[in-house]
Amino acid sequence: MLPDPVLDRSVRFEDDAVLILDRRVFPHRVEWVAARSDVEVAAAIRDMVTQSLGPCFAAAAGLVLVARQQVGASPESALAALRTAGQRLTAARPTNNIVRDVVAAVMGELSALPTDAGTGEIVETASLAAAAQDEYYRARSRALARHAVALVDDGARILTHCWMDTYLIEFVRAADQVGKRFRYVATETRPYLQGARLTAHTLAEMGQDVTLITDGMAAAVLSPFSALGSIDALVTAADRVSMDGHVFNKVGTLGAAVAAHAFEVPYYAFIHAPDPQALKAADVVVEERDGAEVLSTQGIRTASPLVTRGHYPAFDVTPPRFVTRIVTDRGAFEPARVAEYWDGERA
Amino acid sequence: MLPDPVLDRSVRFEDDAVLILDRRVFPHRVEWVAARSDVEVAAAIRDMVTQSLGPCFAAAAGLVLVARQQVGASPESALAALRTAGQRLTAARPTNNIVRDVVAAVMGELSALPTDAGTGEIVETASLAAAAQDEYYRARSRALARHAVALVDDGARILTHCWMDTYLIEFVRAADQVGKRFRYVATETRPYLQGARLTAHTLAEMGQDVTLITDGMAAAVLSPFSALGSIDALVTAADRVSMDGHVFNKVGTLGAAVAAHAFEVPYYAFIHAPDPQALKAADVVVEERDGAEVLSTQGIRTASPLVTRGHYPAFDVTPPRFVTRIVTDRGAFEPARVAEYWDGERA
Repeated sequence: MLPDPVLDRSVRFEDDAVLILDRRVFPHRVEWVAARSDVEVAAAIRDMVTQSLGPCFAAAAGLVLVARQQVGASPESALAALRTAGQRLTAARPTNNIVRDVVAAVMGELSALPTDAGTGEIVETASLAAAAQDEYYRARSRALARHAVALVDDGARILTHCWMDTYLIEFVRAADQVGKRFRYVATETRPYLQGARLTAHTLAEMGQDVTLITDGMAAAVLSPFSALGSIDALVTAADRVSMDGHVFNKVGTLGAAVAAHAFEVPYYAFIHAPDPQALKAADVVVEERDGAEVLSTQGIRTASPLVTRGHYPAFDVTPPRFVTRIVTDRGAFEPARVAEYWDGERA
Repeated sequence: MLPDPVLDRSVRFEDDAVLILDRRVFPHRVEWVAARSDVEVAAAIRDMVTQSLGPCFAAAAGLVLVARQQVGASPESALAALRTAGQRLTAARPTNNIVRDVVAAVMGELSALPTDAGTGEIVETASLAAAAQDEYYRARSRALARHAVALVDDGARILTHCWMDTYLIEFVRAADQVGKRFRYVATETRPYLQGARLTAHTLAEMGQDVTLITDGMAAAVLSPFSALGSIDALVTAADRVSMDGHVFNKVGTLGAAVAAHAFEVPYYAFIHAPDPQALKAADVVVEERDGAEVLSTQGIRTASPLVTRGHYPAFDVTPPRFVTRIVTDRGAFEPARVAEYWDGERA
């Protein structure tokens, strides 16, 4: 059995708060941010206390928290508060659609309650729905990971970018279960250093071989001139995939994907499912974050004091021609055919 | 007139030392490293106190220093000390050939001295030759810059990577002289942050419009999905260009060049001349630096403490198919035809 990494469970519950592991400082410091309202959970998501799939677990817990806080109120006002919370949590960050879907699932269960349900039933239903969503996403990540591991040979050297959350953890577990072992090269992923902190740390916790590079080295290690030895696959998560096969993921993914394509290294993007509400790339809002983040590293100024302007697109858009396969919980799809994921559900 | 940036003159002379501006900490701190021997100048080059074209000026000054220190010795032992110093300075870093060429030029002047020359004449000859090399390289950068400016329209937005030293300074001046003004987007260039510190600072000193991005954002800003507005050209220096048109430059250049090619943005690589001693890419040694550099930023640990291995190829190799033009002091060449630079000199 592989050791369980800390980031496998990065959202916890206390009676009056959602505890969220602060990924901005982990693993240098292990601090949990206590969010005591839906407003505070949304702020934690927006401020990147948690990211990747973390907001999905945090949002589900946030809804349970609101339900608990409404005990004693009328059921109507409790449901109204939950609807407001759901909108607030969904709006915290625009590019990933998973919070939207988790909120919709929990609210769907709540709207199916009989009209005379009390707040006790609302709390119980929200709690069960949130727990079910948590397990549902983990199970889907396990399924995705099994499909992905089948694409990569034992002993392969894999380049990753940013942090893949449960996709990465389940990918390592799924490989272990079938007796495969990979070597990892992780980009550090400026400005937040998710690769240097979260990915490299988690891989090391799980006993995997990991080498760190800067973001600008991705193309170099993919090229035939690399002294590191050949990379067998580029693997990243996707925050969103549109139905026409565009991959939205942490900025830096595009550059690695274009280089992988140029040097004939396969690129596999992981996501539970393409978003049926995003038919084409233009349907997705690409979040722009504060450019000042680029001027510092871990709170210390790295740019010249004369520089006043940074630019920080949080995500980039990789066109389907640079993607080899989009790996979902229902298998691996050619990007141009990823909409077939939903075949059979749209009658 | 544009203001002169500090980095325009980053090597100075004192009687008993070469003063080298420490580019590892500039502009956060303005510190000059005093090198009191050729061994110390070589160490400063190897330790990246100075880089880009800085080693060319430092090496020339180092030879003058050695000549001065040999006053009173026999001419034979003075010349032997200078030969040893030249070899030491050339060997400090392997990828850029400019130190080799400067040392050869100065030593060539010294070997042309009459056999009865005294150490006074040796000092004078070394000093004149070093000053001539300094001016020669600056004049060549001015010529290169004029050819480069002709390729870019007024108002263009230019993406740069790393630090282009006198190429950049002369490029800005040459544009100003013909009434063109560009906007710059600079990558920060991890791990040493030459872009965030040197390039962005120098552009700001010269009154230019500059926006900083992380290295992983280069492809994103080159892509049609960029919110920044289109980039009109990618421009970098080259540390070396082989006669078959491969561009050796700071790691990260390849990724930007491949992305520029994918999105049909021209890429111009600047170098005084291709290296006639490097007929093909394999003839150039690509320096590998200590991987531990990747684990920290400005001396502060950025990677997880569990991560033990970084990989730091200092340069990458951009094949000619990703390069639009190689701009030299004799004009702009298609990369496949860059060897024609030397036509007429090889009879």
